[in-house]
Amino acid sequence: MTQAFEEIERGTQEIIPHEELRQRLSAAAASGVRLRIKAGFDPTAKDLHLGHTLLLNKLRAFQEAGHEAIFLIGDFTGMIGDPTGKNETRKPLTREQVEENAHTYKEQVFKILDPQLTTIDFNSRWLDKLGTEGMLRLAAQHTVARMLERDDFSKRYKEGQPIAIHEFLYPLLQGYDSVALKADVELGGTDQKFNLLVGRHLQQIHGQRPQCIMTVPILEGLDGVQKMSKSLNNYVALNDPPQEMFGKLMKVSDTLMWRYYDLLSFKSLAEIGRLRASAEEGANPRDIKMALGMEIVDRFHGPGSGEQARQAFIAQFSLGALPDNIPEFTLAAPAAGLPLARALKEAGLVASNGEGNRLIEQKAVRVDSERVEDRGFLLHPGRSYLLQIGNRRFARVRVVAEAA
Amino acid sequence: MTQAFEEIERGTQEIIPHEELRQRLSAAAASGVRLRIKAGFDPTAKDLHLGHTLLLNKLRAFQEAGHEAIFLIGDFTGMIGDPTGKNETRKPLTREQVEENAHTYKEQVFKILDPQLTTIDFNSRWLDKLGTEGMLRLAAQHTVARMLERDDFSKRYKEGQPIAIHEFLYPLLQGYDSVALKADVELGGTDQKFNLLVGRHLQQIHGQRPQCIMTVPILEGLDGVQKMSKSLNNYVALNDPPQEMFGKLMKVSDTLMWRYYDLLSFKSLAEIGRLRASAEEGANPRDIKMALGMEIVDRFHGPGSGEQARQAFIAQFSLGALPDNIPEFTLAAPAAGLPLARALKEAGLVASNGEGNRLIEQKAVRVDSERVEDRGFLLHPGRSYLLQIGNRRFARVRVVAEAA
Repeated sequence: MTQAFEEIERGTQEIIPHEELRQRLSAAAASGVRLRIKAGFDPTAKDLHLGHTLLLNKLRAFQEAGHEAIFLIGDFTGMIGDPTGKNETRKPLTREQVEENAHTYKEQVFKILDPQLTTIDFNSRWLDKLGTEGMLRLAAQHTVARMLERDDFSKRYKEGQPIAIHEFLYPLLQGYDSVALKADVELGGTDQKFNLLVGRHLQQIHGQRPQCIMTVPILEGLDGVQKMSKSLNNYVALNDPPQEMFGKLMKVSDTLMWRYYDLLSFKSLAEIGRLRASAEEGANPRDIKMALGMEIVDRFHGPGSGEQARQAFIAQFSLGALPDNIPEFTLAAPAAGLPLARALKEAGLVASNGEGNRLIEQKAVRVDSERVEDRGFLLHPGRSYLLQIGNRRFARVRVVAEAA
Repeated sequence: MTQAFEEIERGTQEIIPHEELRQRLSAAAASGVRLRIKAGFDPTAKDLHLGHTLLLNKLRAFQEAGHEAIFLIGDFTGMIGDPTGKNETRKPLTREQVEENAHTYKEQVFKILDPQLTTIDFNSRWLDKLGTEGMLRLAAQHTVARMLERDDFSKRYKEGQPIAIHEFLYPLLQGYDSVALKADVELGGTDQKFNLLVGRHLQQIHGQRPQCIMTVPILEGLDGVQKMSKSLNNYVALNDPPQEMFGKLMKVSDTLMWRYYDLLSFKSLAEIGRLRASAEEGANPRDIKMALGMEIVDRFHGPGSGEQARQAFIAQFSLGALPDNIPEFTLAAPAAGLPLARALKEAGLVASNGEGNRLIEQKAVRVDSERVEDRGFLLHPGRSYLLQIGNRRFARVRVVAEAA
C-alpha cells in the first residue's frame, strides 16, 4: 500500500485532507471498493499536450491501484462559449464539435488510461436539467464573500476590474459536477484548488462525503519559463510525430529535464534517484535526456518508436554532433526581440555583431538546428534557443525581457 | 396633459429619467400608443393592505391617462421559497396556492384598477424557460462590483454578514421580467430602486428602450413609525370590514393623517390644500380625518359605506364623545412592554399606579375603545394606543423602546 500511496502522491502539489485520502485508499483496498476519481477537461482543447498528461498520469496511478477514472468533459460551458461575447477565443461549440473533440480525446487519453477503468462523461447530462430553479438553489449554497476569497477574484475586485456574475456560477457548476458524479477524489491543476474545494462544500450540503482534492503543478513549456501551452508554441503535442516529439524534448535545458522526469516519467522514484546520482558523477546529461525522450515517444507511439526517433535524431545531427556540454546563457532582450547577431556575440560565439551577420549571410548559422539566413531574425523573450555555428560552436540561450 | 403629469407624479419619490417620462407620456398621448406600466407583486402577500395600494394608485393614474397596467405576480420565486431553507416565513408555494392568491388579489385590486386596462401576468411563464444556460447568460450581463453597490448588499458585505450568491440573481430575474414584458415604465417602492435600475440595464443590453422607473414611498403603519405591515399589526387590510377600516383610520395621529392624505387620497392636490388651510384656520382635525376614512371605506366597500361607517363610529363613542383635542404622549417602554397602569400615570390620567390598577379592576379603562380588565395588560414599543378612562379622560400614547 505504501508504494501505491507514493506513486499516487508523487509530483502532486497539495492533497486535502492528506491523511483522509490515505485512509480512504486503505479502506478501499481492504474492502475492494473502487473509488471514483474525477478530473475535468475543457472540450475546446482537443489537441492535448504533455501539460495535460500530468492529470492523466495521476488518474492512471489511481487506476493502477484499482480505482475508476472519470474523464469529465465540460461540454455544458463549452457549448455556451463566452456568454459576454467578449472573448473571441471562446466561441460556442456545437454538439457535433463536442463529440468530435471527445472522440479525438479518447484516441489520445487511452495511450495513458486503462479503458476498462475509465468512464468518459459529459456534464451537460445533469447541468442542462438544473434549470433556472436548480441554478438559483445552487447559487444559494455559497456566499459572495467566500467566492471573493478566490485569488483571482479578490485581485480583480480590489483593482476595480469587472467580474461578471456568471463567473461566480462556474465554480458552483464545477462543484455540482462532483455531486452529480459522487466523486471520491477530484484532481486539478494548482489553479483549480478553489473550485475543487467548492466541490467539497457542495457535496457536504448534499449529504455526501466530501471528495478529497489533489492538485498537480502547472507544467512548464519547453522554454522552462511559461506554462506549456499551444498558444505560446512551447508544447509537445501528444499527436506530434515521433521524431518531432523526441527533437522537442532534446531541446529542453538540463534543469528542466529533471522537472520533466519528476512530472512526466513513469520511472520509479528510485530509478530517477539513480539517474540523478549518475549525472552528479559525470554522466552525460544528453544521454539522460534521450532516455526521457524515448520513454515519452514510446508512450504515445508504441514500444520501439522511441529508439527509432533517437537514431533518426542522431543521424540528423551528424551522428551525435551535439557536444556534451553546451554552455548556457541568459540574455536580456527588448520586447521587440534580440537580433540574432547580437545574441551570437553575447553568447561568445563571435567577436562582434559584424562577424555574426557575415556568418548568417554565409549560411553558417543555425537556430534550433535550422539554418537562418536572414540578418533580421529576432530572438524573443520568454523562449530558449539552441544557437549553432558550423558543427563546432554551440550555445543555448534563454532570452528574458529587459528590465523596463 | 400637465394635469395628467401631476396626478401621475403625485406622491412619488423618484422618477428616472424624469424628463423622459414626460416626453414618453406626451408622445404616447399624441400617437394614441398605450405605454406598458409594470409593477411586481409578491404572491405570498395575498392580504393586501393600504401600503400596497400606493403602487396600485399609481397604476390607476397611468390607466386614467389611457395606459396599460401590468400587474405582475412573482410566482417563480414564490414557488421556490427561500432556497437556503433558513427563512421559515418563506415556505415554497404550490401552483394551486399561487393561483388561489392571484384570485384573491384580483378581487381586491379591481377596486382600484380598471380591468379593461389591466393585464395580470406571472413571471414563471418566461423564467422557467430560461434554464441553466439562460440563467448563466443573464448573470453574464451584470458585474459583482455593481451588485455590491446596492445599499443593503454593500452594508452586509462590509459588516461581514453573509450574502448568498442567489441574492445577486434575484435583481437580474426581476430586471429580466421587464425585458420579457417590454415594460415602458416600472413602479416600485423606494427599496426597489436598485432592482428597477437593473431592469433598465438589461433592457438596453437586449436592444430595448430602457424603462422609466418610478418609486413610491413606503407607507407608515397606523403607529406612524414603522412601515405598514401585517406582521407588525399596524395595517388596514383592503378586506377589513367598513367599520373596522374606519375605526383604524380614526386612530392615526393628526400628523400621519396628512401623510395619508398625500399618499392615499384621490382628492385633487388643490382640494387637499384647501383642507390644510381650513385646519390651520381652526377646523377640527377629527372631521378632516373622518373625511379621509369615508373616502377610503367608499373605495373598498362602495359609495355610501363610508358614511355608514362614520355614523356607526360616532354611535359607538357616545355620539361623538371623543373630544376634539386629545393630548398626545411619547412613552418609553422596556422591550417586554409597559404596564397599562404606569402608562395611565405617565399620560397624566391618574395620580399613581395604584389608582390606575384600581380603575382597571373597576372596568373603567379602555384601550383603543375596548375595555381592559387585566392589570397585566402591556403596551408594546413601536405602537400607538388611545387610552380612555370613563367618558371624559383621554390620552393618545406612542410607545417607543427604551434606550438600551
